[in-house]
Order: sequence, then structure tokens, then C-alpha cells
Amino acid sequence: MDDTLKARPHGTRIEAVMGTIRSGIAARSLSPGMRLASVRAQAKTMQVSVSTVVEAYERLAAEGVIHARPGSGYYVSGPAAPLSLATLGPRVEREVDPLWISRQALEADDATLKPGCGWLPASWMPVTGMRRALRGLARGDEAVLMDYASPLGLPALRSVLSRRIAANGIQAGPDQIMLTESGTQAIDLICRFLLEPGDTVLVDDPCYFNFHALLKAHRVKVVGVPYTPHGPDTEAFGAALLAHAPRLYITNSAIHNPTGAVLSPVIAHRLLKLADRSELVIVEDDIFADFETAPAPRLAAFDGLARVIHIGSFSKTLSASVRCGYIAARPDWIESLADLKLATSFGGGRLAAELLHAALTDGGYRKHMEATRARLAAAMERTAARLERLGVTPWLMPQAGMFLWCRLPEGVDAALVARRCLDEGVVLAPGNAFSQSQTASGFLRFNVAQSAEEKIFAALGRAIDGAVRQRD
Amino acid sequence: MDDTLKARPHGTRIEAVMGTIRSGIAARSLSPGMRLASVRAQAKTMQVSVSTVVEAYERLAAEGVIHARPGSGYYVSGPAAPLSLATLGPRVEREVDPLWISRQALEADDATLKPGCGWLPASWMPVTGMRRALRGLARGDEAVLMDYASPLGLPALRSVLSRRIAANGIQAGPDQIMLTESGTQAIDLICRFLLEPGDTVLVDDPCYFNFHALLKAHRVKVVGVPYTPHGPDTEAFGAALLAHAPRLYITNSAIHNPTGAVLSPVIAHRLLKLADRSELVIVEDDIFADFETAPAPRLAAFDGLARVIHIGSFSKTLSASVRCGYIAARPDWIESLADLKLATSFGGGRLAAELLHAALTDGGYRKHMEATRARLAAAMERTAARLERLGVTPWLMPQAGMFLWCRLPEGVDAALVARRCLDEGVVLAPGNAFSQSQTASGFLRFNVAQSAEEKIFAALGRAIDGAVRQRD
Repeated sequence: MDDTLKARPHGTRIEAVMGTIRSGIAARSLSPGMRLASVRAQAKTMQVSVSTVVEAYERLAAEGVIHARPGSGYYVSGPAAPLSLATLGPRVEREVDPLWISRQALEADDATLKPGCGWLPASWMPVTGMRRALRGLARGDEAVLMDYASPLGLPALRSVLSRRIAANGIQAGPDQIMLTESGTQAIDLICRFLLEPGDTVLVDDPCYFNFHALLKAHRVKVVGVPYTPHGPDTEAFGAALLAHAPRLYITNSAIHNPTGAVLSPVIAHRLLKLADRSELVIVEDDIFADFETAPAPRLAAFDGLARVIHIGSFSKTLSASVRCGYIAARPDWIESLADLKLATSFGGGRLAAELLHAALTDGGYRKHMEATRARLAAAMERTAARLERLGVTPWLMPQAGMFLWCRLPEGVDAALVARRCLDEGVVLAPGNAFSQSQTASGFLRFNVAQSAEEKIFAALGRAIDGAVRQRD
Repeated sequence: MDDTLKARPHGTRIEAVMGTIRSGIAARSLSPGMRLASVRAQAKTMQVSVSTVVEAYERLAAEGVIHARPGSGYYVSGPAAPLSLATLGPRVEREVDPLWISRQALEADDATLKPGCGWLPASWMPVTGMRRALRGLARGDEAVLMDYASPLGLPALRSVLSRRIAANGIQAGPDQIMLTESGTQAIDLICRFLLEPGDTVLVDDPCYFNFHALLKAHRVKVVGVPYTPHGPDTEAFGAALLAHAPRLYITNSAIHNPTGAVLSPVIAHRLLKLADRSELVIVEDDIFADFETAPAPRLAAFDGLARVIHIGSFSKTLSASVRCGYIAARPDWIESLADLKLATSFGGGRLAAELLHAALTDGGYRKHMEATRARLAAAMERTAARLERLGVTPWLMPQAGMFLWCRLPEGVDAALVARRCLDEGVVLAPGNAFSQSQTASGFLRFNVAQSAEEKIFAALGRAIDGAVRQRD
């Protein structure tokens, strides 16, 4: 290669030297603050002239990649472009990246409509129970108001959770349950516990968009398994197991986000059988459990928490403002996860756990959820009908939950529609944010509880008309 | 090498094959669930007989490292020993590992005394203000009780923080401040943002023990810089900069944990000058700011938040039960940190931020902290006097704060004393948990606010006497 380089024109040789330095920085064999080889040494190593190296170094310095220190040589600049989600994978437009929907919905002012967001309006939540819980705590023990939580978190809440998941056939004592800061933090801890950069993780395609953002932060390889109306496509799942030897599969069982589909017992069984001889761990995110109107199978129940880790939170049903999630898993894993939680966040909020425990065991909660399920069912019908009039059709009519996963008219791009609607103060959830394979550009996810306003359908209609005109 | 292997005895050849498989697993080129090369192929590759490979595979299977699948071959077993803090570094006894103190103190029942813990008794905290804040929230807006926080967190609290740090000379607008779940999560996010496994991080020696646990979870190389009564030893700091090109330095400025020392302006200036040409980023953890009785220099003030990231939380002064911390940093870093926070925890608690904002701006807070500082000063004197009687002497008398870093009588091992006291229901903080170089085996950290009970000194006296007898 040295000889070839010598034979090349001066400009190309300069670029070759620049390329070598850049590669070293990218591969982190050259890190910020490190001194580069001297001009002379570099020239000798690369078999080029000293003037070639001088020119290459000066161009890199002009770009800010390196800098000269008088009398001392050249140094790699920084502060090293720090890790950011944007640089962890191919840069995609913020319009369709996994965080687009979150940022738009979370930053929205009161006037913005959010049919694309993943939570109920505050007025649909058990506000009365939460106010009662707050008043109770205001009179409560000072240790509750002031002290750190225990490593696993409030025993009373873990006992309630143990009983609640037992109702779905999952056997886990309170000591096998650890409270976390949120459902997302639960998955994040599990990823930190199990994954190495470069490992492969399976997700449903489509799946909750934040799984993509989270897994990107872990720098793992993500493989999507097509989701059918009854669970993941088991043929594709089996093939992915063989082809990629994945470490982890993250899924929802009861009510799938974004499709609203429900895992069938036969697919649950087949899935676990396929995983049988592998070393796959499965995270089952059961965050929508309380919206369920008929019992669906849980992977954790079939598997007995051997390879399945069951997680959940209270953000969708009690409060997203009071942060708390949980992990139910094998006792030895819970022990290590507790160490990891202490090391990286020093435990969850004791006050949050006490509040949620009070609100969850409040006499009004069960009735409230009954009313909410009925209200959601009605909103589901109404929203589906309004969307049909615009040529937007549900992929399936969910049994329960808040989401409708809908197909736009042929050839209409959801990201384009979402951008147009945002200009009119309507935040939508374009399909590709949920799709690892980027094959859902013709889909939108609707939150039926956030889709009451006529303005949403007016804006959507105009955006679709515009896109259809553009298409034709 | 093949020839050499052939020439070796059968037993050695079996071990060589076993070693190859083990190395593959350790290096993760063989991961759980993967099929090993067939016996025949392996024999050919390694130039050994088929029976050698069969024997090697069977021994590994007996050990559970691999397993046979009839008719299909051998597979790497698992579930892969997952990442745990214990396996991330040399296994140290739980008695002196960085999480020992946390676990003991957080799991302690009401009867246990905790002079080793890092927080004030609940009764010393601003309980009245917190009760008032809870009652206020119980009557408040339903969005506050129910909705997710915005990506950066409650604007009103960020404004208050901006003004508060400005009083210490740190210029950061509310948009340069992001709320986090805790001070620990603030540092964790920064580590995820800046560090790669294998990077080097500088810490003070001694430093807050959880920095060790946190950095272990990030699998970085940790280098300790000896701490002097006026800040880090700048000669050692400069040498470490040159020798290790560290990415990050984590420290406290105002009141150092565990020593109670205060950074002097001259050392602060020298430190930043040393870092000048490097690409070091500095995290300044200012969690004890409100205990300060005289203003100390902040690195973030000298540096103008160029390479310094300033963090803090409310756990020590308002409540450890209501979780919230913050990061003040360069605007571009805050933007990336917000994405990372959303991806890995979906934001902090809105209710927690509202509660802390109310408690912090409560008219009673300033007076409460004044009283707390006076109370701590008195407890400091009293505790030091009681310890002196046992031959336990402070390394320095801190100007403020809750910690006394004390030397035990010559030759007495703090870990041994801590184990004995634990048997008597007293949780101590042995020095080596704070020391990267493990050179603090003769030290204990005392929390003077948790050291009122005579029982502590009685137990400590007996433990020291026992250790002295053992020594002599």
C-alpha cells in the first residue's frame, strides 16, 4: 500500500494522511488530548513526504479535528464529540426519529392537540384518588416524606403488585419484585444488566417507538419481527433466533403498542418453545394491563419467570407525573438489578411509591378503571368511524386500550402528513417511528382518548388531501 | 503452535481445547445459544484427535459451560452470566465493596443506628414545608398531578436553580439546566453521554463511595487523585492527566465528601489551568451547597461551564424521598442529555419537581437551613470530642457539613470495626469504601447528625478495643 500511495498525486496523499487520522479518532485509538505522531514520524510511517503530512495536519487543524500546540506538536481536539443518540446510528430526520413524537408531545403547549401521544388526558385519570393520597401523605410519617427508599422499594406496594400479577398467573413474591423510577428505567436497567454493545435484540415490528431510542443508547443491533394480529410472526421469530442468536426480546403481551393486538395462547406457547434451547431473555412490558377487558396470556405466566422478565408501571392508569415502575424476575437477577439501580440512581422515590400505593388501593380505583375502559371503547368506535370517512382504516379493531393503528390511503406518507398537521397544532404519530424495518410509512397511531376534537380530523383531512394531490 | 500441541500429552491437549472454548466465551466470540464447531471440525482446526475434542466438550458440558443437544451438537450455555457489579471488577467482599454502606443503611430497621449513612435524620429535615407543599399540590391543577414532565423539567424550578447557582458565580440560564431523577442519575447520564468502556475517569481519593459503584457499572478505568485539605493534589492531578488522558474528573467543590474539606481558589485555578490543553470534562457535584457557611469557589464559575458540568440535588436538604436532581451545562450538551434522558427514563417526575419547588421557595426554608447549619456545627464539635476519647481523630475539622473523616488508632482496621458494630446494630462507613487506592483502611466517615446516641460510641469503643487486642 505504501508504494501505491507514493505513486498517487500529492492531493490524494494528503487525503490519505487525513483519512488515517480521522479513522484513528473514529476508532478511538486516537482520543481527545492525545498527541499525534510527529510530522517526521508520520511521514516515515506512511512513506510520504514531510510536506504532505504538514499539509494534512494543517487542514485537519483548520477543521478543528486536531490543534497545534506551539513547540509541542499536534493534538487531537475535543471535547470529543460526545455520544449522542443522533450519532449512535444513521442520522435520520428529527421528523421521523424515535424521539420526535416524545419531544413534540411533551413540549406541546395547552393549545396543541396530541392524538399521537401515548397517554390519557389528565381529566381521564383518577384525580380524586390522587388528591386524597396527597392529603393523606401530608399528614403522614415524616420518614415517608424525607427518607430514601429501601433498595427494592416500598414493601406494601410490592405486596400489592405480587397479588395483582398473580391474578394473571404470574407467581412472584414481593422479594422478586423491585420498584424502579419508571417502566422505561426498568427496561433500561435490564438492558444494562444483560447487554453488551453489539448484541442483538429482537423487537416487534411495529413496536413502541421509545424501544428504538432506548436500544440505540445501548448500541445494540435491533432486529424487527413482524407483528401479526395474534402476536409476533413465529416463523420470522424462529428464523431470527437462528440467524442472530439474540440476547433479548422486548415485547408487550396483553395490549400491544401500537397495534392494540393481543397475544394468543398458541403463539405464546410456540414462542417460548422456539426460545427453549436458546439463551434468549424476554422482557414482557405489561404497562397496559389495567385496560384489558378479557384476560390474555402472559409469557411470564407460561414460563414461570425463568427466561421472562415481567415489567410494568403506573404511568398510563394512575399518574405519569408520579414516577414508578417495577420489575418481576428471578431472585438472583433482582439482587443484581438492585445493586445496579443503587449504583446508577441511588434508588427510586419513596414518596412516589407511597402515593401510588395509596391511589391503587383507594376504593375508587377499580370503579374508575371500569369507567375508563367503557369510555375508551366508546372513543375507539367513534374515532374509527371518523377516520374511515377520511379513508384512514384500522389495521384491526382492538379489544381494548387507547390505540388505533391505522393505514392511510395508498401512497400517502405519514411523516409528511404529520409535519403538515404539526403546523396546525396537531401532533401525530407517524408509523415509521414504530418500525425497525421502516415499512410503516403508510401508518399512523391514534390515541382515541386524545382524538375528541373535530379540529384534528379537519387538519388530518387537509393534510391527506394535500398528500394525495402530490401523489397523483 | 499446532505441532507443539500435537507433541503435548493427551491431558494437556484436552485442556488446550477447553481453554480455546472458554476464551471464545469470555471474548464473546462464542455467545450463549451458539453452536460450537462440530467435534470433527474442531479437531481439524486445532490439529488434535477427535477423541481429544470429545473429551474436552464433555468436560465443559459437565461444568455447565456448554450443553449437548442430541443429534445437533454442542451449544454455549447460559443464560449468559449477566453483567453484575460484582463481576465487573475484582470481586471484593460485600463488607467493603462500594455498595455495602448503601445497602446496610438503606435496609436498616428503625432500631439500627446509622452514623455511617450520608443523610440527615428525617426529624432534621424541613418537614413542615414539605407537608405544606403536599397540601398545596392536593388542591392544585390536575395536569400537575397526572401529566409527564417536559423534557427539561419544570421551568419554574429551573429558574430558581438558575438564580441560586448564579449566587455562586455560575452563569446558566434555565434552558441550560435540565432536571433529572436524582444527583446520581445526573452523573450517570453524563457518563453515558461521554464515556466508552475502557476510558479513564479521575476521582478524588477518598471520594463518595457510590462514584466507585457507578463507574464500575460504566466499566471505565478509575484513577484516584489524593485529596488534600484544600482540594485535589495538583501535582498528582497533573501527572494523572499526562499519564492517562482521562475523559472525566468527578469531584465535589464546596464541601467534599467524605473529608469535609473545601476547595481553595488557588487549587481551583491551578486545576483548570492544568486541564487547559487537555480534553478533560469535569463534573462538579454540588449536592452539599446549602450546608456551606462561607462561600467556596466553584469550578463551574471559574470555567464558565466550558468544560465543567455542574450538578446537584435536593436529597440532603429538602427530601431524599422526593427524587430530583439537575445538570447545568453547555446548551448543546443539555440538548443531547435531554434526548438520552427521554430514551432511558422518559423524563423525571413532574410532581416531585413541583413539590421541591414549593418547598424550596417556602418562606420557612431559609430559616430552616440556618438552624440546620448551627445544629450541625454543634453536633460536629460534640461528635469530635466523643471520638477523641476513643482515640479516633478527625483528619480535619470541617467548616461545615455533616461529615467527619476520622483516623482510627494505629493498626486498627475499619472494615473489621464496621463488621463488629453491625452486629450491635450500628452501621459505620469504613474508609476503603471511599478509597480507589484502598489506602484508607484506618479511616471511618461519621455523619455527625446521626451520631447522637451513646450506644454508637459504646459499640465503637468495644470494637476498637477488640481490634487493638487482636493487633497487639
